Amino acid sequence: MEIINGERLVLGTCYYPEHWDESLWRDDLRRMLENGIEVIRIAEFAWSKIERYEGVFNYDFFDRFLDVAADMGMKVIFCTPTATPPAWLTEKYPEVLNANMDGVLYRHGGRRHYNYNSPKYQELTRIIVEKSASHYAKHPAIIGWQIDNELNCEKNEFYSESDTIAFRKFLMEKYGSIDALNEAWGTNFWNQTYNSFEEVYVPRTTLSNNTNPHEVLDYTRFVSDSACRFAKMQSDIIRKYIKPGDFITTNGLFGNLDNQRMTNESLDFITYDSYPNFAYCLDAYNKDNFLKDRMWSRNLSEVRAVSKNFGIMEQQSGANGWNTGMAAPTPKPGQMTLWTMQSVAHGADYVSYFRWRTCTYGTEIYWHGILDYSGRDNRRLAEVKSVHEKFQKLSEIAGSKYEAKVGFLKDYDNAWDSQLDVWHEKVEWKSQLGIFEAAQRTHTPMDYIYLRDDVTAEDLKPYSVLFYPHPVLISEERKVVLEEYVKNGGCLVLGCRSGYKDMYGRCVMDKLPGKFAEMSGVDIPEYTLVSPDNKDIVIDWDGTKLEAAVFNDQLVAVGEHAEVLGRYENCYYAGEPGLIKNTYGEGTVYYFGAAFSEKTAEVFLEKLGVKDPHNAKLEIPETCELAVRKKDDTEYCFVLNYKDAEAEIHVKEEMTDLYTGEKVSGTVVLKPFEVRVLK
Amino acid sequence: MEIINGERLVLGTCYYPEHWDESLWRDDLRRMLENGIEVIRIAEFAWSKIERYEGVFNYDFFDRFLDVAADMGMKVIFCTPTATPPAWLTEKYPEVLNANMDGVLYRHGGRRHYNYNSPKYQELTRIIVEKSASHYAKHPAIIGWQIDNELNCEKNEFYSESDTIAFRKFLMEKYGSIDALNEAWGTNFWNQTYNSFEEVYVPRTTLSNNTNPHEVLDYTRFVSDSACRFAKMQSDIIRKYIKPGDFITTNGLFGNLDNQRMTNESLDFITYDSYPNFAYCLDAYNKDNFLKDRMWSRNLSEVRAVSKNFGIMEQQSGANGWNTGMAAPTPKPGQMTLWTMQSVAHGADYVSYFRWRTCTYGTEIYWHGILDYSGRDNRRLAEVKSVHEKFQKLSEIAGSKYEAKVGFLKDYDNAWDSQLDVWHEKVEWKSQLGIFEAAQRTHTPMDYIYLRDDVTAEDLKPYSVLFYPHPVLISEERKVVLEEYVKNGGCLVLGCRSGYKDMYGRCVMDKLPGKFAEMSGVDIPEYTLVSPDNKDIVIDWDGTKLEAAVFNDQLVAVGEHAEVLGRYENCYYAGEPGLIKNTYGEGTVYYFGAAFSEKTAEVFLEKLGVKDPHNAKLEIPETCELAVRKKDDTEYCFVLNYKDAEAEIHVKEEMTDLYTGEKVSGTVVLKPFEVRVLK
Amino acid sequence: MEIINGERLVLGTCYYPEHWDESLWRDDLRRMLENGIEVIRIAEFAWSKIERYEGVFNYDFFDRFLDVAADMGMKVIFCTPTATPPAWLTEKYPEVLNANMDGVLYRHGGRRHYNYNSPKYQELTRIIVEKSASHYAKHPAIIGWQIDNELNCEKNEFYSESDTIAFRKFLMEKYGSIDALNEAWGTNFWNQTYNSFEEVYVPRTTLSNNTNPHEVLDYTRFVSDSACRFAKMQSDIIRKYIKPGDFITTNGLFGNLDNQRMTNESLDFITYDSYPNFAYCLDAYNKDNFLKDRMWSRNLSEVRAVSKNFGIMEQQSGANGWNTGMAAPTPKPGQMTLWTMQSVAHGADYVSYFRWRTCTYGTEIYWHGILDYSGRDNRRLAEVKSVHEKFQKLSEIAGSKYEAKVGFLKDYDNAWDSQLDVWHEKVEWKSQLGIFEAAQRTHTPMDYIYLRDDVTAEDLKPYSVLFYPHPVLISEERKVVLEEYVKNGGCLVLGCRSGYKDMYGRCVMDKLPGKFAEMSGVDIPEYTLVSPDNKDIVIDWDGTKLEAAVFNDQLVAVGEHAEVLGRYENCYYAGEPGLIKNTYGEGTVYYFGAAFSEKTAEVFLEKLGVKDPHNAKLEIPETCELAVRKKDDTEYCFVLNYKDAEAEIHVKEEMTDLYTGEKVSGTVVLKPFEVRVLK
Repeated sequence: MEIINGERLVLGTCYYPEHWDESLWRDDLRRMLENGIEVIRIAEFAWSKIERYEGVFNYDFFDRFLDVAADMGMKVIFCTPTATPPAWLTEKYPEVLNANMDGVLYRHGGRRHYNYNSPKYQELTRIIVEKSASHYAKHPAIIGWQIDNELNCEKNEFYSESDTIAFRKFLMEKYGSIDALNEAWGTNFWNQTYNSFEEVYVPRTTLSNNTNPHEVLDYTRFVSDSACRFAKMQSDIIRKYIKPGDFITTNGLFGNLDNQRMTNESLDFITYDSYPNFAYCLDAYNKDNFLKDRMWSRNLSEVRAVSKNFGIMEQQSGANGWNTGMAAPTPKPGQMTLWTMQSVAHGADYVSYFRWRTCTYGTEIYWHGILDYSGRDNRRLAEVKSVHEKFQKLSEIAGSKYEAKVGFLKDYDNAWDSQLDVWHEKVEWKSQLGIFEAAQRTHTPMDYIYLRDDVTAEDLKPYSVLFYPHPVLISEERKVVLEEYVKNGGCLVLGCRSGYKDMYGRCVMDKLPGKFAEMSGVDIPEYTLVSPDNKDIVIDWDGTKLEAAVFNDQLVAVGEHAEVLGRYENCYYAGEPGLIKNTYGEGTVYYFGAAFSEKTAEVFLEKLGVKDPHNAKLEIPETCELAVRKKDDTEYCFVLNYKDAEAEIHVKEEMTDLYTGEKVSGTVVLKPFEVRVLK
Repeated sequence: MEIINGERLVLGTCYYPEHWDESLWRDDLRRMLENGIEVIRIAEFAWSKIERYEGVFNYDFFDRFLDVAADMGMKVIFCTPTATPPAWLTEKYPEVLNANMDGVLYRHGGRRHYNYNSPKYQELTRIIVEKSASHYAKHPAIIGWQIDNELNCEKNEFYSESDTIAFRKFLMEKYGSIDALNEAWGTNFWNQTYNSFEEVYVPRTTLSNNTNPHEVLDYTRFVSDSACRFAKMQSDIIRKYIKPGDFITTNGLFGNLDNQRMTNESLDFITYDSYPNFAYCLDAYNKDNFLKDRMWSRNLSEVRAVSKNFGIMEQQSGANGWNTGMAAPTPKPGQMTLWTMQSVAHGADYVSYFRWRTCTYGTEIYWHGILDYSGRDNRRLAEVKSVHEKFQKLSEIAGSKYEAKVGFLKDYDNAWDSQLDVWHEKVEWKSQLGIFEAAQRTHTPMDYIYLRDDVTAEDLKPYSVLFYPHPVLISEERKVVLEEYVKNGGCLVLGCRSGYKDMYGRCVMDKLPGKFAEMSGVDIPEYTLVSPDNKDIVIDWDGTKLEAAVFNDQLVAVGEHAEVLGRYENCYYAGEPGLIKNTYGEGTVYYFGAAFSEKTAEVFLEKLGVKDPHNAKLEIPETCELAVRKKDDTEYCFVLNYKDAEAEIHVKEEMTDLYTGEKVSGTVVLKPFEVRVLK
Repeated sequence: MEIINGERLVLGTCYYPEHWDESLWRDDLRRMLENGIEVIRIAEFAWSKIERYEGVFNYDFFDRFLDVAADMGMKVIFCTPTATPPAWLTEKYPEVLNANMDGVLYRHGGRRHYNYNSPKYQELTRIIVEKSASHYAKHPAIIGWQIDNELNCEKNEFYSESDTIAFRKFLMEKYGSIDALNEAWGTNFWNQTYNSFEEVYVPRTTLSNNTNPHEVLDYTRFVSDSACRFAKMQSDIIRKYIKPGDFITTNGLFGNLDNQRMTNESLDFITYDSYPNFAYCLDAYNKDNFLKDRMWSRNLSEVRAVSKNFGIMEQQSGANGWNTGMAAPTPKPGQMTLWTMQSVAHGADYVSYFRWRTCTYGTEIYWHGILDYSGRDNRRLAEVKSVHEKFQKLSEIAGSKYEAKVGFLKDYDNAWDSQLDVWHEKVEWKSQLGIFEAAQRTHTPMDYIYLRDDVTAEDLKPYSVLFYPHPVLISEERKVVLEEYVKNGGCLVLGCRSGYKDMYGRCVMDKLPGKFAEMSGVDIPEYTLVSPDNKDIVIDWDGTKLEAAVFNDQLVAVGEHAEVLGRYENCYYAGEPGLIKNTYGEGTVYYFGAAFSEKTAEVFLEKLGVKDPHNAKLEIPETCELAVRKKDDTEYCFVLNYKDAEAEIHVKEEMTDLYTGEKVSGTVVLKPFEVRVLK
């Protein structure tokens, strides 16, 4: 493949040849190449450019453009246009539209207003993809394909009639009989019992917005399934036509979608759209958020959970904003480079800026590209060129992998249950943010690992410590993998509320923590949300005071290997155990009876001996991120300064600066937004 | 009757025998009985358990369950299942559904998604109630019936087509002719004149959400009428079948419903669902609300206004919460007992905990019962047992009545008008809270009395002082009752805005305070809302500064018996009278030109000599509530400590502690959440 | 004409003879006349009074009323009743109703629930207007007509099917072909291309609420066009029948409506509805807003932009409030007079109080008139009488014009674009408020001037300085007018973001500030919203620190006449030019790279020598407004004290107090809310 091939870092951009203007095209492509951009993505919303009238296909426009690109030496990623059905299509076939829960259709004019399950839309999609792929795939300028654009962006809930029909089919396949569904969804409650699948719908408007939670969980799985099937339908067609070595991808990472499954089924690799400047949107800015744009390292870690090496299809290159919202300032000098290197540090080997020129019309007139409206050279283009020069120097890191000894276990079942269940959500979000921020502040590289069906204890072995803060839903299979990981010497850290639901999201009629009882050596006779009239519930762990946030399980140690490490210090359960360590096989399980705040998570990192593993080499202030990519035995240390102020780091062992090739040691000062890559 | 019979206090619980598991049933019933629970409520959402397919009735499940109950010696309250129509029903007959104002139907899956006026739903309701009552009513385990569940909960507005048709009928009966309706509703305004009843609808979507206020008032009366008719339809059927001594009730106290009428027409007594832990919901917690869970004493006083003795069908026994909201902590040790005794103190002779086990599926997985998911014995079950033991000791208070010398007059016309009229609402809510909180803080027992058509001056006589803070709407009949009460020596306290509307909610084209002019000796040439650029408007009453909150009537004393007691101290009406006392017959009327804040209300209690009437016996801190039940000449004093801290009371005359049978006097320390019952 | 005739100031009121009660009518009219009210407006919602059943017309009611009015000597403004279609009409023809974007119809019962484009409503409107005008126009009591009531109030967006059909017609006329529309709207973006006008709709529900911004701009123009056509349809009919000298007007000034066009096409003059007490609504009160009710001077300046002399059809005379909201206190003694004089000071020669009696039913029971519900004499009626006496003294100012040397340029294209574009909105609102407040505080009279097609450089010449803070959209024609104004010696002050869009709202693919480049001598290589992590960006202008609010253009001076006056002091563009002065012909253009805060605007007023032009005569505290009306050479200075406190002014040259006829000089103390008119 031309990109993500382990050979070098590549720069690209998103290009919109909207009008037939060859001299403009040539001029643009020439300027891109001069500034180090060698790949462009095109055509992701261009359905009408190819099929302006139903069944009438015209390839002239992109034929010509691709010839120009080939002539100039520009490589092209070509897109299927299914994210934006044309006006003629939605006007003639309104059944393809998505709707809100009340049944109001989302109309033409925005993006992604279609539903995945409309037979008519699937038919029209198959036609346009088949026509496009069969016509263009052999063109020498093309190096790969993007399916659709940002699947599940804009809205990841679907309420059309086609969705109800497809949902019934999904449920029939899952449950076989309506009584099995009744049992799984607990329809005894509030007399929800169904007599046939015909009585089941996607969630509809109900009083107090109370759709059965087990239904909503299955519905979310169904939405993900629908998106995956839609992507695969396109991928299967494109595969028939593409040249050897050309790739298929799609971009973005959105909710209610199992990105691993989609990638496995349909893509060669995944790409992400990274806009850290969202942190500076005027209406969303949170001055108390310590991480701000550095939060995007979390998103990049999510992408890395899908694939260790990946691409950035859209990397921020200007101010963001729609005419209707999301207004943000222009990136300051250095920020574009910082955010590009943030992507690379986490595993991106391809970075494509969104977009070359800023659009002068439509909703996205403020979603700036590299160039402003006039198209003249500017500061940001100069920054692109300097990134290109840096990429040349960093070439050897292509194909290296982000290196972490701490893992954070996740799974879609818990993620989606926490969306529909406010008790689950409260603990989940506290710990998600707490553990991530603690790892960031302490320069402890951390991976996310999704506990999928194909994950084995062997896959988990590289991690000295695994946080799985709130595995509320747990299956027998996953439990067995975790037990094996621990038995073989692993260290698993669990938080409150573990194991109280089955995979349908029903509570277990059992002692808690359910399936975790044995490995954790814990029994939970009582529990409570932290009352709003109490605050700062504290657990004492050998003299260290841990905040016991959000929820408190009152624990009892069970079995000879279970040891009470910490006890609550206040409220009516003062003196009760709140932290238990269980030796299980060769390993250990820690059960902490609350959610993990950032301070609490930092104590765990420290006490478990995994905090700041590179501090023998590098001493870095907490305002800088440390990310390490490794290939063979070489470690590439990225130090990223997110602040608009200088930062001082200490290089304790002599290292090589990849930008300059020079040796560095001792105190090094990073300029505002500066990044250093040291090996 | 087995409960509310003046003989003893009885404990119950709500039970959900969802699966046919006789050994579980027997085990549960045995454990209940061992812990003092002798009544269970069942089947309130169980329509599909009896009629899973339309017209196919199967009684096996509850036949067997009732036999088991009878065998174990458990008494049963059986419910009609109409709160939750089955899926087959709403799928086949969508006309039974309620809708929002825009016409979007509320679909299957929640609760109470039906409308009262659908002829089809009424027909199907009659069938299921007839079938259930005729089949089960003779069963020896059954002691009474609950109609539906929480009428008007979830939503107390109805916008289906059936509602419009029924509303027209209601209006035709009320007005006779469309011109009478036009006159009553002032349809001259904004050209709203109707030519026929066919042009009238339940409130529909209008610009700026402005439905004619007189229509909304009648609509609210119509909603209440609809609910009452629906309850009576069921009650009339059940009455035909029940055993002698068995009762009919329903539960809860919700908006837009004349609970007195419903009780008189259809019930033997009313029961309430008491969840004081709502005060500790995470999203609703108000740390500045002094009363918190003690606010539920207000709700209990509302129940008592319907019936001096009543039951609690659902009493909080665990944390509350739906998966979609209302998350609250687990009740602390002692709170369950405290809230139970709060119910008893206000007149409950039957208390049934919601629920035995916590449901493991559906929306209410966090609405905890006595037992958690596992069903094992726990702290809260132990607390139930101790309540049972206390109930044994309190047996003699059954049938005694809450005793108050201060009354607070209410009526539904004003309550409902204050919902639709923000000026009315502002004064109403200020005074509702102010007077209640003043009574609570000063340990002044107070009753609510609804000024219904059957209330006479004689009924009011027991009250030394009656507050009727803002009788905006007043009828000639009610005026006469009040005049008679005062003439006979009563003391009536009125606040601002009295009497400026007629019973249609139209303002009177008359001097204010309209019908109250004569009895109050007041004329009101000017009035104003307290301007947001003024604050703390004060009236001086013999040197005491009264806050004149929200609204200011500028008064003039009329007649020889009217005396100016207080004058405004600031704003452009400084010096104008704000408080007038009128001697009227043997009694007095106080007209206060503003709303009653808590401090203001306390001054009235004090100056009118009704504050803290039991202070010769008991001296209690303001953090404790005092409630007194009386039978014959015995006064039972409940002292309830709502705080998670000790409280010190002083027993000035020797009294007997009913729990221990011991004499107590002098200083007594109440533990956190502790209750003492002294006689 | 009887009013707005340059001869005298006239008082009126709005009257609602709702019931046939001649003695009440006579009594009311007599009392009005006794208190100086000589004109009444009637019948604006009275459709059913004339056509209660479709096609059945009955003129008796107003025939009789007009005879009584004539008999009493009262002059009448008669209204067309189209603001409130009758129930029979909307029931029979629901297609006349307006709808929300989701298609939900706005139903009978409020106001203005119709749409302008329904052929059926237009037909029924033509009939009722023709019938009314042909029957009543000759009546001697009538002096003029009001069309409808408050066009575009309640809601100024229309989503009915008739609107879509009319919108297509509007677009066909504007663009001729669908491809011209595609080009103008940039439908290339997000594949929005249309193949025919049949595919185009008024804005519909879209995901993320993103309708094409160029479409929304045209849609807003279409709404304005629809309202103007609707008014003209009525005006054309009425003109056929009215007596010589009788006038046609309408009332209010609402959004999405080109009031100048409507006035030019259909009216003799415009009238406004002035309710400054909105500033004291309980829910909207902003104690930090310095101007409060004085903000209504801004609205009055907008009216004056339509016509130098105008009327007030509804002037606040009591508390405002609907039963559903907008609750406000009663005007304090003096405020009614203050607000009346505020209207007069800005150009009103006719002032009509809303309303005589307060309505006792319907939504507006709290929208108080002069009299309260009882109708008896009161303080506010006495204030009307005193206003009448003052009007006698002020008679000579009738026909005089508000006098200002500072102008504020506006146009509807920019106003409407700023509604749909949050970046535009942010700068627009900052500067709108900043410049207005600066002018008010510094007693610098200021006019609004709408840069319409018929405005010439000559029209602008009287203004020494013109602010045109953010002309984002600019046409070639307007540019030429501005250039000519400057060349001839004018001074034009521009702010950031000038000229970056064309008249379709598309960004120009050109250097910024686009069409302003030449006259301003400015180039803008970079720009940014002020980042939320920076604050207080400052430009230094000869030692004066200017706040550079909201947005920062980084400027470069171009050409020999351009001079850098100010530079940014902070952020990454510290040192870059932020203020450039260009000499252009005989005049100058100032380009300021940010929005104008109040402090910044004050500096401009000062540095450009136009601040406080009357300070040689009068020295006034900033809490008082100064407004000057001029006739021939006489200047009438209105000094208005908006505070509930005394204010001290200094009369430096001897002047005459028009109320008293006395000479005044030196220190004069104004009582709370007092107004002085000095010449």
